[in-house]
Amino acid sequence: MSTTTGRRVGRPRAKQRPDSGMATRDELLLAAAELFTTHGYAATTTRAVAESAGMRQATMYHYFSGKEDLLAELLESTVTPSLTLAHRLLADESRPAEARLWELCRSDVELLCGGQHNLGALYLLPEVQGERFAGFHRVRSDLKSAYGELLSATEAGAELEKDERALRTDLVFGLIEGVILVHRGDPDRPVTTFASATADAALRIVGCVLA
Amino acid sequence: MSTTTGRRVGRPRAKQRPDSGMATRDELLLAAAELFTTHGYAATTTRAVAESAGMRQATMYHYFSGKEDLLAELLESTVTPSLTLAHRLLADESRPAEARLWELCRSDVELLCGGQHNLGALYLLPEVQGERFAGFHRVRSDLKSAYGELLSATEAGAELEKDERALRTDLVFGLIEGVILVHRGDPDRPVTTFASATADAALRIVGCVLA
Repeated sequence: MSTTTGRRVGRPRAKQRPDSGMATRDELLLAAAELFTTHGYAATTTRAVAESAGMRQATMYHYFSGKEDLLAELLESTVTPSLTLAHRLLADESRPAEARLWELCRSDVELLCGGQHNLGALYLLPEVQGERFAGFHRVRSDLKSAYGELLSATEAGAELEKDERALRTDLVFGLIEGVILVHRGDPDRPVTTFASATADAALRIVGCVLA
Repeated sequence: MSTTTGRRVGRPRAKQRPDSGMATRDELLLAAAELFTTHGYAATTTRAVAESAGMRQATMYHYFSGKEDLLAELLESTVTPSLTLAHRLLADESRPAEARLWELCRSDVELLCGGQHNLGALYLLPEVQGERFAGFHRVRSDLKSAYGELLSATEAGAELEKDERALRTDLVFGLIEGVILVHRGDPDRPVTTFASATADAALRIVGCVLA
């Protein structure tokens, strides 16, 4: 792939590294995730991301317009799988809403805590207020609405007044995202146990009586 | 206070600004809080903090050894008042543990969300893993232990097995800190309503039956 003159054919790489089999785009995202969560977003340069992924900065710019673009995509990846699941669960009226809300909570916690890097830790960056992150805020808001719909469909949720329902939705959503902080304090805890316990806690917040 | 040659007597100030009546140390902390939460920690220089507080960088170094020192002190200020309250509540056995846990939760949420700046948003900075922040992690861990003690003293908490009690403590603590994220999404919501609702939710997570 590379000649002794340093000129390469195919995808240019800044240095040789074992081929991970991942698509270039994903390699860049993974490198960005690692650097953003360990060195910090502000302290990370696009050059460092490209080098860590074993490619030149110019190649990176072929896939991403810059650091914000990488961060926005990483943040959206922490929400879109849960949003897809939420829509599927909302459509599946054959099961009780309690069981569906429980499943959404469990799965969401597994997604937030199960990745190699604690991407949820990036939610609070001041940079995430910017316009490039409108897409992330939209999917996150859509996910919260889906939580609210499932909550309203539970027996306990249906009995609540509208304002109180909105408040409980926020609390459930806060709990789910709050596990980011708890997880960070104890990253070795098995995610599955913790995810189920969080889903139980979410139903308790709604007012459901657990078996 | 200042002469036309630019030399000043008394506390040196980089530029004139109305005297806020605050102690120099507090002025620096407030300036740091504003810059860290709006511009970001990594993007803020000690020079910017000093200038925003209306003084010279050299003066700042008389009070703080650097940026980490400012951040550590700000973070500890989000925990120590709750820890003091927790110790007082733990000692006051004249009241049911449920009421004391509720009060700790409510007060903690008001502290986290009530300040002028959302300092809780700084918890997730990768920089906060460093050694200078051992003090913050210690008081935060002490506060979690106090939550655990109050939780164990409730009727519902006393019935739980040890592991389950530790898990519920983590979930309650996660909920309280998770409100940082919820609050950020809706900073205009009245903190008092939200704080009470969060305290209710915490008791529900423990398994208490609310009136």
